[in-house]
Amino acid sequence: MTGPQLDVPSGLAARVPTPEPGDPRLGRLSLNQKTVNGWDLRAAVDGCVRHGLPSIGVWREPVAEVGLAAATATVRDAGLRVSSVCRGGFFTTADDVERKERHEDNLRALDECAALGAPALVLVPGGLPAGDRDLAAARDRAASAIEALVPHALDVGVRLAIEPMHPIFAADRGVVSTLAQALDIAEPLPVEAVGVVVDAFHVWWEPGVLDQVARAGDRIASYQVCEWITPLPPDALLSRGMMGDGHVDFAALTAAVAAAGYRGDVEVEIFNADVWAADGDAVVATLARRYVELVEPHL
Amino acid sequence: MTGPQLDVPSGLAARVPTPEPGDPRLGRLSLNQKTVNGWDLRAAVDGCVRHGLPSIGVWREPVAEVGLAAATATVRDAGLRVSSVCRGGFFTTADDVERKERHEDNLRALDECAALGAPALVLVPGGLPAGDRDLAAARDRAASAIEALVPHALDVGVRLAIEPMHPIFAADRGVVSTLAQALDIAEPLPVEAVGVVVDAFHVWWEPGVLDQVARAGDRIASYQVCEWITPLPPDALLSRGMMGDGHVDFAALTAAVAAAGYRGDVEVEIFNADVWAADGDAVVATLARRYVELVEPHL
Repeated sequence: MTGPQLDVPSGLAARVPTPEPGDPRLGRLSLNQKTVNGWDLRAAVDGCVRHGLPSIGVWREPVAEVGLAAATATVRDAGLRVSSVCRGGFFTTADDVERKERHEDNLRALDECAALGAPALVLVPGGLPAGDRDLAAARDRAASAIEALVPHALDVGVRLAIEPMHPIFAADRGVVSTLAQALDIAEPLPVEAVGVVVDAFHVWWEPGVLDQVARAGDRIASYQVCEWITPLPPDALLSRGMMGDGHVDFAALTAAVAAAGYRGDVEVEIFNADVWAADGDAVVATLARRYVELVEPHL
Repeated sequence: MTGPQLDVPSGLAARVPTPEPGDPRLGRLSLNQKTVNGWDLRAAVDGCVRHGLPSIGVWREPVAEVGLAAATATVRDAGLRVSSVCRGGFFTTADDVERKERHEDNLRALDECAALGAPALVLVPGGLPAGDRDLAAARDRAASAIEALVPHALDVGVRLAIEPMHPIFAADRGVVSTLAQALDIAEPLPVEAVGVVVDAFHVWWEPGVLDQVARAGDRIASYQVCEWITPLPPDALLSRGMMGDGHVDFAALTAAVAAAGYRGDVEVEIFNADVWAADGDAVVATLARRYVELVEPHL
């Protein structure tokens, strides 16, 4: 159950053939560009086209590398949708100057989403400030910062998508640890402005997660799939696996997301040193195969 | 914020002197023997006496090495309390034969606790069986298995202490992921038979954890302290740190445990390759110093 099986004609990878471009089962599949970390934006867009993926999840840094206008043109000219933009957030500083900088950066991120035609800005809440042990206060600051972005989100027509993150990241990356907690933050705010990310890696373990997905309903702004694998790779940030190689019940989670009314794209976002070291086309072929076997039938 | 500062006269370690044996602040401090992994039971008992710790948390394997009667005599002759026994549990198999074996092993573990005079048997719930993705069903099996042990726990006067485990272990070690979930399992069962472990490493991140500690009240069967450190060490099983080196708010958590009415021993249980490689006496001196600075004032 460790590591991705890329291009290996055995086990799960052999059970279904790789879907061809044009296969209707690929109609909602999005490549988060971080899954093929060696590709720049142009290469990732070309990869999506080559494998028949109609959508891409982009990151701000590679967009900035080519410039927003060029990036927008590249994606549009290829006929792709942008499923989401990673990432806004990092809200937890207790310093007023930094807080203002973060707010302004998030306003810019919303503008970038609007230019790219992305429906959602993924918000990584941020961890505890250095030396700060008051997790409840950090969580409150994240909630306030999200609320402060609502007017601009409404103005530009982009949803703030709060990403609850696995508690492994509570100290250093994301103080919002459960889907329930993300919904507690989102629900008092307008649904067209604030939603949540359901990322299988982050929430699969949550007690009552299927009930929380149902509770989320039209708050679901993004559905992301990748796998919890054991033994956990040594770098926690690169510990995500290829669907099918681990422990997540994609059938149940996907069915719940569909039943909640989610009709958007499904992003595959895998941070993993072995996946990153593999050939990009093999990675995309593998994830497309796993997606049509494990996820798409339950949408 | 990484790694223990052992014997280093700088920073936190220098702020308070190491407490001497007989210091009343050590009156509830227990060494979980796994914290000094290089010591056998005899050495751990001697180490507690040498450093003035009145209590020890023992593991079944080192007890079995010397035999239960000899282990009991060793601890009793040294005048130590046994704060808990690690570990029962591993309840999640779906196989009837294995389930029966696990039940019987847990009955034996309760008998061992009674012989050792330990008030609590720490229950590690177990992970998902190989290839099984139904986490909810595994959780239900764990709850049923705990219920089945209640009559014997009452007979021998030992509490079953359900240990909620950090979600990093949900797949391979502990399917009970939150204190809230552990209490949901415990509350329908007699309080004298079933309690919970509040282990700082496992629950520090839990939304509303202080409320859950208050809810736990006299269900708290064990309070264990060690630290969440970043970056997380490469082996998740050895990722615990020395109090003060990480992110846990021991003041708030300890005060909540005290306010809930807990009057038992406080165990320090650290699995960490650097701690294990260090000199055992330096480890115990350091943890005693950290305990009197960070934990004991809030009890």
